[in-house]
Amino acid sequence: MVKVGIVGGTGYTGVELLRLLAQHPGVELTAITSRTEAGMPVAKMFPNLRGHVDIAFSEPSLDTLGACDVVFFATPHGVAMKQTPDLIERGVRVIDLGADFRLADAAAFEKWYGMPHSCLDVLAESVYGLPEVNRDAIRKARVIANPGCYPTAVQLGLLPLLKAGLVDPSRLVADAKSGVSGAGRKAEVHALFSEAAESFRAYGVAGHRHLPEISQGLARMTAHPVGLTFVPHLLPMIRGIHATLYATLTAPAGDLQKLYEETFAGEPFVDVMPAGSLPETRSVKGANVCRMAVYRPQEGDTVVVLSVIDNLVKGAAGQAIQNMNIMFGLPETAGLTQIALLP
Amino acid sequence: MVKVGIVGGTGYTGVELLRLLAQHPGVELTAITSRTEAGMPVAKMFPNLRGHVDIAFSEPSLDTLGACDVVFFATPHGVAMKQTPDLIERGVRVIDLGADFRLADAAAFEKWYGMPHSCLDVLAESVYGLPEVNRDAIRKARVIANPGCYPTAVQLGLLPLLKAGLVDPSRLVADAKSGVSGAGRKAEVHALFSEAAESFRAYGVAGHRHLPEISQGLARMTAHPVGLTFVPHLLPMIRGIHATLYATLTAPAGDLQKLYEETFAGEPFVDVMPAGSLPETRSVKGANVCRMAVYRPQEGDTVVVLSVIDNLVKGAAGQAIQNMNIMFGLPETAGLTQIALLP
Amino acid sequence: MVKVGIVGGTGYTGVELLRLLAQHPGVELTAITSRTEAGMPVAKMFPNLRGHVDIAFSEPSLDTLGACDVVFFATPHGVAMKQTPDLIERGVRVIDLGADFRLADAAAFEKWYGMPHSCLDVLAESVYGLPEVNRDAIRKARVIANPGCYPTAVQLGLLPLLKAGLVDPSRLVADAKSGVSGAGRKAEVHALFSEAAESFRAYGVAGHRHLPEISQGLARMTAHPVGLTFVPHLLPMIRGIHATLYATLTAPAGDLQKLYEETFAGEPFVDVMPAGSLPETRSVKGANVCRMAVYRPQEGDTVVVLSVIDNLVKGAAGQAIQNMNIMFGLPETAGLTQIALLP
Amino acid sequence: MVKVGIVGGTGYTGVELLRLLAQHPGVELTAITSRTEAGMPVAKMFPNLRGHVDIAFSEPSLDTLGACDVVFFATPHGVAMKQTPDLIERGVRVIDLGADFRLADAAAFEKWYGMPHSCLDVLAESVYGLPEVNRDAIRKARVIANPGCYPTAVQLGLLPLLKAGLVDPSRLVADAKSGVSGAGRKAEVHALFSEAAESFRAYGVAGHRHLPEISQGLARMTAHPVGLTFVPHLLPMIRGIHATLYATLTAPAGDLQKLYEETFAGEPFVDVMPAGSLPETRSVKGANVCRMAVYRPQEGDTVVVLSVIDNLVKGAAGQAIQNMNIMFGLPETAGLTQIALLP
Repeated sequence: MVKVGIVGGTGYTGVELLRLLAQHPGVELTAITSRTEAGMPVAKMFPNLRGHVDIAFSEPSLDTLGACDVVFFATPHGVAMKQTPDLIERGVRVIDLGADFRLADAAAFEKWYGMPHSCLDVLAESVYGLPEVNRDAIRKARVIANPGCYPTAVQLGLLPLLKAGLVDPSRLVADAKSGVSGAGRKAEVHALFSEAAESFRAYGVAGHRHLPEISQGLARMTAHPVGLTFVPHLLPMIRGIHATLYATLTAPAGDLQKLYEETFAGEPFVDVMPAGSLPETRSVKGANVCRMAVYRPQEGDTVVVLSVIDNLVKGAAGQAIQNMNIMFGLPETAGLTQIALLP
Repeated sequence: MVKVGIVGGTGYTGVELLRLLAQHPGVELTAITSRTEAGMPVAKMFPNLRGHVDIAFSEPSLDTLGACDVVFFATPHGVAMKQTPDLIERGVRVIDLGADFRLADAAAFEKWYGMPHSCLDVLAESVYGLPEVNRDAIRKARVIANPGCYPTAVQLGLLPLLKAGLVDPSRLVADAKSGVSGAGRKAEVHALFSEAAESFRAYGVAGHRHLPEISQGLARMTAHPVGLTFVPHLLPMIRGIHATLYATLTAPAGDLQKLYEETFAGEPFVDVMPAGSLPETRSVKGANVCRMAVYRPQEGDTVVVLSVIDNLVKGAAGQAIQNMNIMFGLPETAGLTQIALLP
Repeated sequence: MVKVGIVGGTGYTGVELLRLLAQHPGVELTAITSRTEAGMPVAKMFPNLRGHVDIAFSEPSLDTLGACDVVFFATPHGVAMKQTPDLIERGVRVIDLGADFRLADAAAFEKWYGMPHSCLDVLAESVYGLPEVNRDAIRKARVIANPGCYPTAVQLGLLPLLKAGLVDPSRLVADAKSGVSGAGRKAEVHALFSEAAESFRAYGVAGHRHLPEISQGLARMTAHPVGLTFVPHLLPMIRGIHATLYATLTAPAGDLQKLYEETFAGEPFVDVMPAGSLPETRSVKGANVCRMAVYRPQEGDTVVVLSVIDNLVKGAAGQAIQNMNIMFGLPETAGLTQIALLP
Repeated sequence: MVKVGIVGGTGYTGVELLRLLAQHPGVELTAITSRTEAGMPVAKMFPNLRGHVDIAFSEPSLDTLGACDVVFFATPHGVAMKQTPDLIERGVRVIDLGADFRLADAAAFEKWYGMPHSCLDVLAESVYGLPEVNRDAIRKARVIANPGCYPTAVQLGLLPLLKAGLVDPSRLVADAKSGVSGAGRKAEVHALFSEAAESFRAYGVAGHRHLPEISQGLARMTAHPVGLTFVPHLLPMIRGIHATLYATLTAPAGDLQKLYEETFAGEPFVDVMPAGSLPETRSVKGANVCRMAVYRPQEGDTVVVLSVIDNLVKGAAGQAIQNMNIMFGLPETAGLTQIALLP
């Protein structure tokens, strides 16, 4: 059994990790820390866990976490990079669901996250945990940067086109929409029910932290410079991301459907739907899947890709567990076979 | 492996049965019938099942269904009572998620459902499948009447009070609220998003089909005549029932919290929360649980019980599988350990 | 033109006052104060007001407010009672949308609101602003306690029964449900979209601040002691209250429909629907109406009343303006003829 | 007073016309027809109209409608083109909220709407009712084609860029999102609450009827061939359209904010927000406004425009009344000064 610790389990990625780990056949949940809630049973804060998770939040402590095989950080940026060096020194592997190790360029990290990076050596060895791209490196990694939610949906959706060199990488558009749970469990006015329900708007149009992460990922897929316009929007629903991706063909398209199916053949958590399908976010609600469809409207030179994930699962906790499974030689699908809740 | 057939799998209770059965370790899904959709792969209609359920809808046929160990009817009333006699004659056990066998009194059935009952002998032997009340009879039953969603939440909530003889059974109030999925997957104006969202209303105040079913159940718990005022309401959400129950004490209340905990001690799917708790419907979303709390406001003589279920799980498909587990000697919790999706 | 000031316009009752007053033919919006947002144009915080409301928030000041004919307090409890004495001394009339003057009993106020009352003389002369009950007193009042949202829906719904002496006042049940906007525009976790959407729960079962207010109002309608069980619930929608009221007949019911229609004949903002109707909260969304229906299920001795309002309009800002109209001799419906937004 | 008739008032554009016309100071509502509901009081179907609209649905009749000054068609395509010739012959002016007169090219109409056009001469004289583009022609028109909802949001959003010749018209992207009320009040499974809530998906990617309408409108703004990729999506909310528009600069951008403000200076129903704003659909809920913002992310060559309307108001009924006001010499804002409902 893999001994698991969680730092910062009071947010939505934390409770989602708990939901999934509590049903994982190969792990033992050893510790979950929260400075503010130490002593409170986890199931008191999240009653859906009653009868499934018995432990209480504990004070963060290097001794407790140091006894784990792997520690998940479900924390705001800045926390993981402080504690990771001590943990890996003790042989603990780390999966950071936050942003500390996502940007390889420390200057970019400082620019977008407003603080200098505190452990450049760990940053240098860390691996970007998108299994469909980096599976081999993940296997051996000590530190995983679990991808952001938007970056997962966008990178997977564009991967086949960029790898095949079919589109102009300097002219990509990602119009992305996310449910409100992506904003976390912080008390903020803009995320109140009465503010977010029955409304829709864009945000971060001038610049969003996921832009450099996505651009970095896309740049690794192609030899040419990448230009991306990324516009995120807030959906009046809890879970789900839908990325609508636009790219311009620079070569004969060939059979795009076949290209997508072949690119992801064998991938347990990417589902290319039949031609003409319309992926719904609810079809992945609670499940570790990226479901997609590819179109070429009016047989023109614009390719449209529709890519959906549950931001808390394939966009966060589920992908983190997928990474853990790979790191520890468990079946990649262990604990991740939930079927989406529909309706 | 128990061989399972489903009649009428195109509605919400049908897809929920499929979601749960696809992950059940002890069953083999043998057939799912639909006259209108025969030939269509189930996962085409319900894409959340892609990769999990491979079979297609087939024409209803006695031969196919007759080869099953158990057949679930997820059909409108009137269908199960036609086909059940032939099936039980072939040794197939039947669990009806519809209403055909819920009312022991055939005259009441005819009054509330607008058609005469067509197989009184089967009705007479059928068992009302509320495990917390009828577990022993369920074990041996050939035909199970799976309870309605409201009746499950209301009966479980009032059971301890009535069994203990603490309240006046002639003066009970059940103010119940249900998500829209309770109305099924029929194309009807009143269930459109633009009709049901951002609004709330009562319905069936003058009389609802679940009233006689609940009254019958409550009457079995007490020797006195039962008088129930039942007002159902439509919630602007998909899943969940919340029953708020009011009863008048006729004897010293004693420790109500203890009474509730003891009544349901050992029940795998009833969760009495600590005193002062407020059960949320989302804490049971997707899970086979009835979660409840009991109050005595201002120490007066009115007892208030709050009882929540997921109408599609403990209120339909999950309870049906619980009944199947009991009937076939499987662990009662087999295939039913899902944790509710929160948020 | 009546010169109007608003104290505390950054919450939902504040913006609703602005929406309604901006279209009122007989008022001039003179000042709106907010300590935290002084200087910010109101329409910057609430873009729906762009092009309709030009003024900015200003520092609270007795000089500014003292120049108004009437000042609305849309503030948490404790604010209005501090400033009201100075204002009425200057001849300004006050309408408090908060709780400071709702409970005639200062001890009860202190018990439920956790602070002593600071101006008992003003409390003594203040008038409870439910026009359907107190219209004459409102006309001459210097200080109006605008009723709470739940109290409006519940008192209007029970008024005909209690006035007619038809039911047992010691055994009343009010099962009430409110949209999330009732919780205000404060950043609190429980009111986040991801917490409140797709879920439903009760709250305040052991005791809610609107309980003594409702009880006080009901007691004024009958000579007998009032016993009320009041259970509020949180609806996953923005606006709307639905009160489902249960009372026990102690006298022959007679024609309840007629009783309701006659009681409210001539009331511009109470709509008794035809027998058998089901009031929807959306039918009053944005409108200053209390819409209701009365039932006697199975011709038993329990009367069920369904009563709906928009908590921000008839339950707050609209009713406050209705009170202002009465106080200043304007047509009672001035500025209050909006039609509810449906769908 | 302008005498107004409505054909087909049982859908959402119908009830919205009624809501707005009932408060319009210059019209008299003369007739509203519905074959299926003749005899039923309008306020029985739409209880928000109780106390505001007294008339009942009547059988469609040329005599009744012929006595009106203007007739609105709130009907599926194919109805208006049958009845319009008779009406204009009698001097009645026609505003079609459906699609019959939107496409100038009859062949295109037949291709996209699956029926031949039946009155080409009327089609030839009809005027596309987008006031910001066609105000003069509208004034004199006998027949108005009221624009579709998506076309309104997209055309207004791109107008300044195309008129100024700043962007490549052959490479436009409109990623558009609509609330469910855009699908109308028909009983269809895909529009059920349990299908559309808590989910998001694209539709019509391969081709949507609004594509040729938008392309036609954009082509009229520029001398160059237009190439548009249009992807509509379904939002889990009732009202509102958000169009996110992407265009590629082919000339120095200059001050885009100024360009937008100047283009729409004097327009009563277009609101260009300050630079950096994020238009929310709720800021126009119930109001006849198109609110927009323009961005040039990272100072690159992609312009992003955000454009929001209420699909039932500026996208349908409100714009129709705006057209009527222009046609009959009423103030253009008459009856259209409602403030959006927020929250």
